[in-house]
Amino acid sequence: MYVSLSRLRVKEHGAPRLTAAFRARAHLVDDVDGFIDLQVWQSDRDAGELVMVSRWRDRASFTAYMKSEAHAISHDRIDPSVQELIKLERLEHLHTYEVIAE
Amino acid sequence: MYVSLSRLRVKEHGAPRLTAAFRARAHLVDDVDGFIDLQVWQSDRDAGELVMVSRWRDRASFTAYMKSEAHAISHDRIDPSVQELIKLERLEHLHTYEVIAE
Repeated sequence: MYVSLSRLRVKEHGAPRLTAAFRARAHLVDDVDGFIDLQVWQSDRDAGELVMVSRWRDRASFTAYMKSEAHAISHDRIDPSVQELIKLERLEHLHTYEVIAE
Repeated sequence: MYVSLSRLRVKEHGAPRLTAAFRARAHLVDDVDGFIDLQVWQSDRDAGELVMVSRWRDRASFTAYMKSEAHAISHDRIDPSVQELIKLERLEHLHTYEVIAE
């Protein structure tokens, strides 16, 4: 199993809007080959720290999705005001992992 | 759902030993009330970066476990050489999150 983790940093007052956007996501990824699941986590110490975690069968399915039209469409439909919120405040780090034990 | 994330940093040559220790874990936590699952992730850019993620029904079940005897026993049985590996090299950050979207 392969994991992609992105950290998003927003101002605390922007967090509810970003949360709402995630809840209204297009779900285009759900049918992509190799996709397992996606969660958005909010730090309980800092409401402005959000983490998006998606899990994949393997690295190949993740990288194929990142280059796909479905990924481009998913990002294009993000509301401009939310885009701006992320662009202005984000401190995004994309980290990727292999699951090595359970 | 509640998430606990710990980062462990070890020298690359120590990673296989730590991985083996995780794979041989006691599984005492598996039956704890509120426990959902646990995964260990290894960065694909840096084999010395390991992340332990456990998921819980809620914050209360996680904090109850952290104070429990099962947690103490699980940690006590870690091999001293592995303890040393972690102690010397770790850069551990415990982060906790609420799952806010899926």
